[in-house]
Amino acid sequence: MKTYAYAATAADKPLAPFSFERRALRSNDVAIEIMYCGVCHSDLHTARNDWSWTNYPIVVGHEIVGRVIEVGPDVTRHKVGDHVAVGTMVDSCQHCDQCHKGEEQLCRDGNTQTFAGVDRISGEPTMGGYAKHIVTREEFVLHIPQGLDLAKVGPLLCAGATTYSPLRTWNVGPGSRVGVIGMGGLGHMAIKLAVALGAHVTVLSRSAKKEADAKTLGAESFVVSNDEAAMTKAASSFDLIIDTVPAKHDLTPYLPLLDIDGTLCVVGQIGPLDELNSLPLLLGRRRVAGSAIAGIAQTQEMLEFCARMNVLPDIEMIRIDQINEAFERLERSDVHYRFVIDMASLTQS
Amino acid sequence: MKTYAYAATAADKPLAPFSFERRALRSNDVAIEIMYCGVCHSDLHTARNDWSWTNYPIVVGHEIVGRVIEVGPDVTRHKVGDHVAVGTMVDSCQHCDQCHKGEEQLCRDGNTQTFAGVDRISGEPTMGGYAKHIVTREEFVLHIPQGLDLAKVGPLLCAGATTYSPLRTWNVGPGSRVGVIGMGGLGHMAIKLAVALGAHVTVLSRSAKKEADAKTLGAESFVVSNDEAAMTKAASSFDLIIDTVPAKHDLTPYLPLLDIDGTLCVVGQIGPLDELNSLPLLLGRRRVAGSAIAGIAQTQEMLEFCARMNVLPDIEMIRIDQINEAFERLERSDVHYRFVIDMASLTQS
Repeated sequence: MKTYAYAATAADKPLAPFSFERRALRSNDVAIEIMYCGVCHSDLHTARNDWSWTNYPIVVGHEIVGRVIEVGPDVTRHKVGDHVAVGTMVDSCQHCDQCHKGEEQLCRDGNTQTFAGVDRISGEPTMGGYAKHIVTREEFVLHIPQGLDLAKVGPLLCAGATTYSPLRTWNVGPGSRVGVIGMGGLGHMAIKLAVALGAHVTVLSRSAKKEADAKTLGAESFVVSNDEAAMTKAASSFDLIIDTVPAKHDLTPYLPLLDIDGTLCVVGQIGPLDELNSLPLLLGRRRVAGSAIAGIAQTQEMLEFCARMNVLPDIEMIRIDQINEAFERLERSDVHYRFVIDMASLTQS
Repeated sequence: MKTYAYAATAADKPLAPFSFERRALRSNDVAIEIMYCGVCHSDLHTARNDWSWTNYPIVVGHEIVGRVIEVGPDVTRHKVGDHVAVGTMVDSCQHCDQCHKGEEQLCRDGNTQTFAGVDRISGEPTMGGYAKHIVTREEFVLHIPQGLDLAKVGPLLCAGATTYSPLRTWNVGPGSRVGVIGMGGLGHMAIKLAVALGAHVTVLSRSAKKEADAKTLGAESFVVSNDEAAMTKAASSFDLIIDTVPAKHDLTPYLPLLDIDGTLCVVGQIGPLDELNSLPLLLGRRRVAGSAIAGIAQTQEMLEFCARMNVLPDIEMIRIDQINEAFERLERSDVHYRFVIDMASLTQS
């Protein structure tokens, strides 16, 4: 299937119109016409080759919402006309213990990323959602529940799943005391999801100016993280802290804020962190963990939960020809809180 | 009660004979004649003021074994003649949630350390077990089960409790895959206790020469931690790693060895660690934790377990007048694996 897209062709070049072939439908494939695609930091990192694994040209985007336009003969989960979504992965081995548990993100053989991955059958590079169409095996296509605003669903697939998963791993529910560090795309979803799960949510931020926004998003409390007295007052007061900061930083000042047996879970930074001091870990049997995206079953659960609880990201809708400007604004954290591309704006050039 | 001891009088002076008053028995106190006292790294750190909190003179030692020689009128748990032990703490608030859970080591008001602490009633500094007698409230005095060799019990109180507690927190049992980093006082107990709990134990060490000793202690496997191929082969193969290294070091090379949801628990180093890389945490939802000593109930459980399973440390018995030489050897890690002082060698000078 011929499709068209916006692609990065080099680390230092803007995204530009591009056309390419999507694979012919395999028996278990679903072809989707993409309606919306969220803009994730990973898109930017990959387009600019920040992680040194990009091959060009590449089409990024893994917060994909659309409608089914064709299905392979063996497809049973989806039918033409369904509203569906594709997130950060499009395949996995399907045979290992993790896949059997529905934790395909932790597949022993590695999951296949939606873009910059390698198709497990053809060996071709995978291409993401800044495109008119995508073809994906049915197991990695999610149902969008009735009632969710399709224009806003995209960011749930990455920012939502990434923050929902640790909230579930660490059993957040009514009465849980959750801290959220950082208030970008991930952070704002962490706040909304934790609040919807019944938690008492506190935003930890360097900037006192963000307090009003934090409260609007549902947080009950706010701690300015470079106010030493406020940090001391907040000692031992969290069961879980979700750390969404996407840069090298120091975890140690946040550790005493965890109660005994509490966990700080890193979901933002993938790479180096500052030196760690073990003292607050030992004194409170505290823990530092990491978590990345979520399995398909849990992502589906999250979508149903969001539909039931009316949880959606705050988005700014853009046209595809505004993507390069959006990347620049994303770099400056100048977005409340996630860009979504309206794919109706992508026309065959 | 007048007693005699060996005390540190300055950071740069050897321990020397010293006499002082133990408090008169309170109604809930037990007076113990000390028979043996283990030699812990903390003794050395405190005597030399490595942690900058030592007031001199100080009597260190918190792996204390002895017999009851007198009890206060309200004491119900112990009687004259019982063989008993005192570990790293001698009091706590007894009212907070942690004390109520039997986790006095995590007392919200801070537990009272056996030495270099402050008595909660008199305000006097606490003095440890390099002495002929100790007076301790009965709740912090442990029963020594029948059948345990009294000469070897001491190191269970600190090295044993410190390693047993995380093995229990992380549910180690038959089939668990446990790694142990470091093979000193703590490490050798971690090996023995994990083996006794039914785990498959692997020692991770920089020195291939330690393999035979590791096997003698009960480890089934051995990985040389600077052998890159061996470390790669061991990827994702542990449920829990107990890290007993008592110095600043890099945790990151060990993290990929944890299986999904696995934990590396720091029990050795209290203070700075090297920079951490979040990538292996995120990719396997792995965790880094800390743990310090154990509650009284769990310490008692550990003593019963050791009696049942015949687990005891490997010790080298010394006389009290050999303590300064023992400290020097301890600094060079020249001990297999714990010194114990025979307190019969301490006579009134």
